Amino acid sequence: MVDIVLLGCGGTMPLKDRWLTSAFIRCQKTGILIDCGEGTQIAAAQQHISRSSIDVILLTHFHADHVSGLPGLLLTMGNEGRTEPVDIYGPEGISSVIPALCILVTLPFEVRLHELHEDAGLQTVCRIDSLCIEAFPVVHRIPCFGFRLTLSRCGKFNPERARELNIPVYLWGELQKNETATGPDGTVYRAADVLGAPRRGISVLYSTDTRPNGQLEQAMQGCDLAIIEGMFGDDEKRERAAETMHMTFPEAAFMAARAKPARVWLTHFSPSLPDPETYLPDVQQIYPAIELGFSGKSLNLRYPED
Amino acid sequence: MVDIVLLGCGGTMPLKDRWLTSAFIRCQKTGILIDCGEGTQIAAAQQHISRSSIDVILLTHFHADHVSGLPGLLLTMGNEGRTEPVDIYGPEGISSVIPALCILVTLPFEVRLHELHEDAGLQTVCRIDSLCIEAFPVVHRIPCFGFRLTLSRCGKFNPERARELNIPVYLWGELQKNETATGPDGTVYRAADVLGAPRRGISVLYSTDTRPNGQLEQAMQGCDLAIIEGMFGDDEKRERAAETMHMTFPEAAFMAARAKPARVWLTHFSPSLPDPETYLPDVQQIYPAIELGFSGKSLNLRYPED
Repeated sequence: MVDIVLLGCGGTMPLKDRWLTSAFIRCQKTGILIDCGEGTQIAAAQQHISRSSIDVILLTHFHADHVSGLPGLLLTMGNEGRTEPVDIYGPEGISSVIPALCILVTLPFEVRLHELHEDAGLQTVCRIDSLCIEAFPVVHRIPCFGFRLTLSRCGKFNPERARELNIPVYLWGELQKNETATGPDGTVYRAADVLGAPRRGISVLYSTDTRPNGQLEQAMQGCDLAIIEGMFGDDEKRERAAETMHMTFPEAAFMAARAKPARVWLTHFSPSLPDPETYLPDVQQIYPAIELGFSGKSLNLRYPED
Repeated sequence: MVDIVLLGCGGTMPLKDRWLTSAFIRCQKTGILIDCGEGTQIAAAQQHISRSSIDVILLTHFHADHVSGLPGLLLTMGNEGRTEPVDIYGPEGISSVIPALCILVTLPFEVRLHELHEDAGLQTVCRIDSLCIEAFPVVHRIPCFGFRLTLSRCGKFNPERARELNIPVYLWGELQKNETATGPDGTVYRAADVLGAPRRGISVLYSTDTRPNGQLEQAMQGCDLAIIEGMFGDDEKRERAAETMHMTFPEAAFMAARAKPARVWLTHFSPSLPDPETYLPDVQQIYPAIELGFSGKSLNLRYPED
């Protein structure tokens, strides 16, 4: 139900063998891109992702390595034939930054810009069917947000109860999607009468460019996948990490160990970190579910079997 | 004396296996980049080109596929430690387009923007030692320029004549570089007295995004290398080429056949042209010195033996 592809795993600048960090997430029919540095459209093409299928773009912050691929991506989406609007969400300033970056861009579709606010704390970005996208401020040199995408799941349908209530079978599907359904004689049936308690859905978290912080740690709890930054492998770089407002692998691992997401992918590696593999065994000692991100790393998350 | 590396050969959008068209030219100690679409900095890294060695950036025109990699490139040049100023030359509007594109860019070096004017015809862009860079307007949907780089060469030094004139030997080298040299007793010696007629230098032309035109044809004459566009392979695409103000392979070839540059590299292939090789034999019938460009195609041009 939720397909995730990590498009790149680099920070600061694209390298010849490492794209900048961004992720494509397909949730039901909605295509979501998080961040878009230089080359992200090429990384997406390499993963056979139709760029024109991107409906929502979430921008963590306005450092060039997270947004400067946007003009090219939008142009390619137009060239690929997109005509439906695209919604872009990002920090305050989005309404001046994006038009400037896109000064040479003319598109056959509408781009709708939406501003996130740091003082709103954990906030709902948008809801699309059963998907809820939330944003939360993290701790970087400039305003920066993490995102959590949650696909909710209704309770189990009880066919015996539906029969007892004489609900026509053709309305059963509707009651699993909506709160009510109306019969041919005008009778209104309530989903709450035939569904069990809401079941556990699927949730994915994405957060780069931050120091460890409570908001992020809390948002990671219960996630099926947390994509978080590990800018520096070695804990000896902790001072440099603090200075630049990033995290070392151990800092990320200790936070994950407290929050306990089912899986963790580290990403956003510094160009000064050519072999992140070197540091993996140590952080897997801290939290075994940690893996390293790479371009094209993907995961298909399904609802758990009942 | 002149090293040329074609960094990409695509037009419109970067493909997963084709960078956008741009070229790096090292002429004596000066590094020159022509155009900078999305990904150009990565293509340069793949060719082991130090991005911080770029002193001059020439922009043909303000379509995104020729300039949107500029913010990332400049940031990387800063990260690589450049502190010397960089000169960027491009069409009118450069002073509004570049600052907008670079809204998120802060640099440890000065960027100096210089405007080219269509009505100036063939114009000198700049002179650096023996290198003269010229620009000339071509015929596209928006103002667009081609560039010609010429490394001039002084006449042959005549040692017998220098001895006759009692010019101290340690001044001989200076007279091959400058118009005059002054001896220890204040005597001024003139290069013209000891040098033959100026010899043939080296010249390279670069022009994409244009219809065939007389200015370009004239500028190509006598060039050692002409890098020109062939957006469409098949001459059946001539109507499409005319509509979008580009050239087909045969159109480029007929122009080259008249101008007779020593070598021609075709580049700026449309994304709709996956196999430019298909069309090469036909255009080599028109002008045998035509080759196809590709990422990393390079040439070292030396002065001819006397």
